[in-house]
Amino acid sequence: MEQKKTTNVILFSGDYDKVMAAYIIANGAAAYDHEVTIFHTFWGLNALRKEHPPELKKGFLERQFARMMPRGADRLPLSKLNMNGMGPKMIKQVIKKHNAMTLPQLVEMAQEQEINLVACTMTMDLLGLRQEELLDDITYAGVAAYLADAEDGNVNLFI
Amino acid sequence: MEQKKTTNVILFSGDYDKVMAAYIIANGAAAYDHEVTIFHTFWGLNALRKEHPPELKKGFLERQFARMMPRGADRLPLSKLNMNGMGPKMIKQVIKKHNAMTLPQLVEMAQEQEINLVACTMTMDLLGLRQEELLDDITYAGVAAYLADAEDGNVNLFI
Amino acid sequence: MEQKKTTNVILFSGDYDKVMAAYIIANGAAAYDHEVTIFHTFWGLNALRKEHPPELKKGFLERQFARMMPRGADRLPLSKLNMNGMGPKMIKQVIKKHNAMTLPQLVEMAQEQEINLVACTMTMDLLGLRQEELLDDITYAGVAAYLADAEDGNVNLFI
Repeated sequence: MEQKKTTNVILFSGDYDKVMAAYIIANGAAAYDHEVTIFHTFWGLNALRKEHPPELKKGFLERQFARMMPRGADRLPLSKLNMNGMGPKMIKQVIKKHNAMTLPQLVEMAQEQEINLVACTMTMDLLGLRQEELLDDITYAGVAAYLADAEDGNVNLFI
Repeated sequence: MEQKKTTNVILFSGDYDKVMAAYIIANGAAAYDHEVTIFHTFWGLNALRKEHPPELKKGFLERQFARMMPRGADRLPLSKLNMNGMGPKMIKQVIKKHNAMTLPQLVEMAQEQEINLVACTMTMDLLGLRQEELLDDITYAGVAAYLADAEDGNVNLFI
Repeated sequence: MEQKKTTNVILFSGDYDKVMAAYIIANGAAAYDHEVTIFHTFWGLNALRKEHPPELKKGFLERQFARMMPRGADRLPLSKLNMNGMGPKMIKQVIKKHNAMTLPQLVEMAQEQEINLVACTMTMDLLGLRQEELLDDITYAGVAAYLADAEDGNVNLFI
């Protein structure tokens, strides 16, 4: 039996456009029958945040990061032409016009296609993010797990 | 007969310095006898825009994006130290001083070396860019074509 | 005898968080017994600058770049939430709190693990950086050397 090809994306960015690119490639690869993993680290973790997380007791710095970072895929800024939120609105309008998928829809599709969504535990600690704040059915792992996947991977990308 | 090695770059960025890095790697790989593809998506498409495109009828949002995005490789901003256009001028001066290649020259060289310059049709739709506005001899394709190239690629990069 | 797996990172970014991600992956891969190379180009070169370089005679543009770019791993800005230096301070505090490694420690560890730290000579020329200003035990090379490593690499990333 032939082994499945694999795609491993490290998602470092928390920008709407870059996260969108990551999820389009990942969903495409899954449709192409790859085993796909998206390893969310640093600002990429924001794509996995729940819009309405439970109340959690946090230290001062953790509260600051939590407050300053966008909560969930729908609220991410653009990497260019963000214009204080105008840019994301424009992108969402053209997405709608062209019947393309919004970022929350792409994340949902990734979960339906059983793409392995991983949250990097080390950067969760640094940014003070807890499992209760992130989407359900996420895997929690570190750089060793990423490397074990990627070292025999076909398409490895850092986004 | 041995199969050619391949390099596949996804060019997401529209910053002068990042696009320059992409084209230097791509031209190097082509000189090294790799089959090379640069898949331009999102802001990376701006590197392929003609300086003087034909007049086109566009909707409101498409006109806004077209107006706000830089027209062609020579007009891209820097990712750092852009300083309202001073940075790119400084970089172009040091490029000249060291007899290195400017970005438009690197793009021309890529075309001479028969590097496959691909424009992502999905993001062209989103940003309202048309084929008439982009350089001649470009290939038009989507994520499936990228994955078909990249899954057996040697050097896959997201820039 | 089985050949060693290899990880090749192009480090283009000079942001604290991205450089940190690069060095965490690189150190992880080295611990995993990969042969690891980090190819520093453009702003990534700033991670290799000495805090107290010798006085050097430089041209006008070279002096400007040297003055505007951060000197060494400890002084890099964040890619997000930099807030005029507040962000890096907050990150360094949470790193300390969680007994994680700071960037200068990660660079030191990379040197101890014999990760090949390469400085791109072409971009050193452009930005006016000299060997005397960079850390000791660095390798100096160009894109051809990178491609020779990467074309048979297992994990290739552009950060």
